[in-house]
Amino acid sequence: MQTTFHIHTTGPGLYEFTSEVAAWVQGTGLLTLFIQHTSASLLIQENADPEVRTDLTEYFHRLAPPTTDPTMSYLTHTYEGPDDMPAHIKASMLPVSLSIPVVNGTMALGTWQGIYVFEHRNAAHTRKVVAHLA
Amino acid sequence: MQTTFHIHTTGPGLYEFTSEVAAWVQGTGLLTLFIQHTSASLLIQENADPEVRTDLTEYFHRLAPPTTDPTMSYLTHTYEGPDDMPAHIKASMLPVSLSIPVVNGTMALGTWQGIYVFEHRNAAHTRKVVAHLA
Amino acid sequence: MQTTFHIHTTGPGLYEFTSEVAAWVQGTGLLTLFIQHTSASLLIQENADPEVRTDLTEYFHRLAPPTTDPTMSYLTHTYEGPDDMPAHIKASMLPVSLSIPVVNGTMALGTWQGIYVFEHRNAAHTRKVVAHLA
Repeated sequence: MQTTFHIHTTGPGLYEFTSEVAAWVQGTGLLTLFIQHTSASLLIQENADPEVRTDLTEYFHRLAPPTTDPTMSYLTHTYEGPDDMPAHIKASMLPVSLSIPVVNGTMALGTWQGIYVFEHRNAAHTRKVVAHLA
Repeated sequence: MQTTFHIHTTGPGLYEFTSEVAAWVQGTGLLTLFIQHTSASLLIQENADPEVRTDLTEYFHRLAPPTTDPTMSYLTHTYEGPDDMPAHIKASMLPVSLSIPVVNGTMALGTWQGIYVFEHRNAAHTRKVVAHLA
Repeated sequence: MQTTFHIHTTGPGLYEFTSEVAAWVQGTGLLTLFIQHTSASLLIQENADPEVRTDLTEYFHRLAPPTTDPTMSYLTHTYEGPDDMPAHIKASMLPVSLSIPVVNGTMALGTWQGIYVFEHRNAAHTRKVVAHLA
């Protein structure tokens, strides 16, 4: 079966939607999540201390800073804003698809694992994540 | 069903093969792509402005430069050429497998998403991508 | 069918478990591996020259050094030790799940591809990898 989750984002950071997915899965099989965007990512990360999420956001912001940063002056795709090309870079090195086994209606996540959309753009977006379970 | 796509590459960069995959898929299910190499990657990225691809290639070239670069002098696996170990590094942080839902014969790609082989080596190669659809 | 592999690690580096997986798979289908942790990763990489593995470990150690490094002083999640937040960073940019086609009881790996747990923490751990084959 398939569905699409819509995740509303308001700037860079991690937006959890584990509970929405957990409520949808059933039976035993394989869940695949696929994000239909090239400037936002999926991510499975720690869902305990929120500082992990702010630290991750800051780390990747520094690894691929806005194109207004002098170290990024070689980039040419800048007409969609200084946060656009870095968003494509981050979306390349972070997951576009995730596969999670499901057992008796429950995802086989580890104790501290949550499922997130990692937004890389500054403006508000509604991100679409297609889910497939079979 | 399964098949293998052969993608010819001539140096670092992104080589699109979305149309080959689109022509092969059918029905409703899950498509998995798997690249059988450790110095080239799969990538889903923007298929509109070609500058995104040249910028991505340049960014990862700078993030993991050739082993002749002084900042990479600590690396030891150099006998296959200065572009070899950086290729393994890039192949670690970029996808080796991708999973894409298929609905009524069409991949559930977003509007701007194309499927690419991201070549990391300087020499020409033929890269093999195994496709599985079920 | 599903199982869980337990991989014992003793500090940062790549731990191969290709043969355990190869002994378990059968028939033709899709194998998915999923690691139930946020500070260790899965990785498919070259299984020939062991220097590739030590170089990869060193590269990612430098890309995300311990929080005691002055360049990482902006990070706030430090109470689990200087290797903890960098482990979460590496686990974000390296695979949490892998999908590998299986044909007639054999994984469709390339000639030089091995399957690894990439441990990011300093202390010894037992890492759990859930396998799903269908």
